[in-house]
Amino acid sequence: MNDEQAMQFALNLAKSGSNQTSPNPLVGCVITNNQEVVGFGAHLKSGEAHAEINALKIAGEKAKGANVYVTLEPCSHVGRTGPCVEALIKAQVAHVFIATLDPNPLIAGSGARRLEEAGITVSIGLCEDGAKAINEAFFYYIVHRLPYVTLKQAISIDGKINAEKGQRTAITGKEVQKDVHYARSIHDAILVGSNTVCIDNPSLTNRLSSSNKQPIRVVMDRDGKVPSAAKVFNDKMAQTWLFTSKARNLSGVRTFVIEDCSLRNILRTLADEGIMTLYVEAGSQMADVFLQQRFVQKMIIYIAPKLLGSGALSMATLQEEFIFTDVEKIGEAIKLTMTMK
Amino acid sequence: MNDEQAMQFALNLAKSGSNQTSPNPLVGCVITNNQEVVGFGAHLKSGEAHAEINALKIAGEKAKGANVYVTLEPCSHVGRTGPCVEALIKAQVAHVFIATLDPNPLIAGSGARRLEEAGITVSIGLCEDGAKAINEAFFYYIVHRLPYVTLKQAISIDGKINAEKGQRTAITGKEVQKDVHYARSIHDAILVGSNTVCIDNPSLTNRLSSSNKQPIRVVMDRDGKVPSAAKVFNDKMAQTWLFTSKARNLSGVRTFVIEDCSLRNILRTLADEGIMTLYVEAGSQMADVFLQQRFVQKMIIYIAPKLLGSGALSMATLQEEFIFTDVEKIGEAIKLTMTMK
Repeated sequence: MNDEQAMQFALNLAKSGSNQTSPNPLVGCVITNNQEVVGFGAHLKSGEAHAEINALKIAGEKAKGANVYVTLEPCSHVGRTGPCVEALIKAQVAHVFIATLDPNPLIAGSGARRLEEAGITVSIGLCEDGAKAINEAFFYYIVHRLPYVTLKQAISIDGKINAEKGQRTAITGKEVQKDVHYARSIHDAILVGSNTVCIDNPSLTNRLSSSNKQPIRVVMDRDGKVPSAAKVFNDKMAQTWLFTSKARNLSGVRTFVIEDCSLRNILRTLADEGIMTLYVEAGSQMADVFLQQRFVQKMIIYIAPKLLGSGALSMATLQEEFIFTDVEKIGEAIKLTMTMK
Repeated sequence: MNDEQAMQFALNLAKSGSNQTSPNPLVGCVITNNQEVVGFGAHLKSGEAHAEINALKIAGEKAKGANVYVTLEPCSHVGRTGPCVEALIKAQVAHVFIATLDPNPLIAGSGARRLEEAGITVSIGLCEDGAKAINEAFFYYIVHRLPYVTLKQAISIDGKINAEKGQRTAITGKEVQKDVHYARSIHDAILVGSNTVCIDNPSLTNRLSSSNKQPIRVVMDRDGKVPSAAKVFNDKMAQTWLFTSKARNLSGVRTFVIEDCSLRNILRTLADEGIMTLYVEAGSQMADVFLQQRFVQKMIIYIAPKLLGSGALSMATLQEEFIFTDVEKIGEAIKLTMTMK
């Protein structure tokens, strides 16, 4: 196995932890000796062993003089698990290939430096694009100390989200619902505004996908408009966090009473609480605010095969540019995935 | 080759004449004797030999006692070429499989009857869906005596076609333009309204696709608003037909001065002139009229990865339902193809 093959293998291993390591990154590691694989590992869950440690365990004595391929810079600080650089040094590996450095500017390069100081050859940048892509959300989260936001909207061909204001129009079918429930399951939290809860009274749980993961439901309700009887406050199907400026006594609901209910402040708080990925199921008003303030990293649009006409409510009021990254037919609808330009 | 394989082969042969037989249908024919192919043919151009005649020529003596597979009912009337049923009878074939009957209710079944009267076994309906699908436009044209209309629009994600009224907003890129030029090349005619010509002054020719076919340019200009200097009236790149209620003297432009400039009347006239397929490049106003009056059979929407916001002009004012039949990424845009529900 040559260097690139080994790093590609490490990237594939990293992906085996998809959607289960948050707020940690995906990391894969492969160890070769004389071009033969002698160990491999991945990081699978926050709090559990890092990829390098898993790989070293398998390699045992064969790690001595070996090449190590790791998709993210090994940590040099002592976290919940020991620092990986010390384990690599102790194992006397010869050469460490790092696909990409730690995104945290305060830490970036320190792991690599420590390895070099110990006499290990270090190469940085093999398969870097691939390594950054699998941890897109993590990189954004670390660099900006904000959740990576995916905004979802269901619209008609003519860009309308509701036939009338204050009314709910079901514009997509069962297959789209399944897709939305799956999307919920792979995010740390779902965010909705008070309008959505008041009008739709949604459960916001993942009920239709094969996964049984339930994201935290985050309700933004500055003025305390949402009635205490709302499903999200009572059904105990998943955790609910409420952001509001008015104190409320809702049993089982984690309530953040904050004066500054600005989006930035709420998102920062969510990041500090470990929410790395946030799925926003917003009405047009809140979608606008998210877009205007440039907190959206990814947008998913489901287009129903209908026109709703001039009486209907438009999805957006602002001008913005995107890049379509994916397009797919889901049931009777079209799913567009895009990132900000 | 069994019956179904032979008819599928005939369907494939029929498709070899795609976009070149208008206003005639696509027809393919296969002749087998003892399950061996002894002849095959297709109709390739209006005025030239029919599929059955081409196939009989190849089969020669072997047509006697043979099975014939033809994708559309053989004609019994004398058109520009002799009737195919007489040729089949003369060749003494044993069994004729017809995928689908002639769509003209006045003729449907007469070819089949004439064959049966001559002692030939006739089976109708093998691969009927496929046979109807390849001649969708022809069937519509014959049954309704109207062109099969494809409506094209380029919109933003929020369903807007122009940033401001009376202004042209280029919302899609070069790859979409190529696709549009190709679409032009496979239609008998393109139709635009006076607004589009006044604002955009388009050439409406096929310049970017590999085909050099030029459709007829049809301009609807009831009130004679389009200036005589417009490109479509002067560039001689393709034929231009003008529908208006005011007499005009435009050299080289075929002018239909008609009192009733209703869409129905214009479309009926186009059909009578042999326009089977019509590509409508309309602004939102004319698109609305086409949709409202239900003259649209297919809609192609190019979605640019932008929001144009609340100040922009919406693509439609009416409510309508569709079925997405195709979705494709073209350059930076998404192409949606849909038919009426």
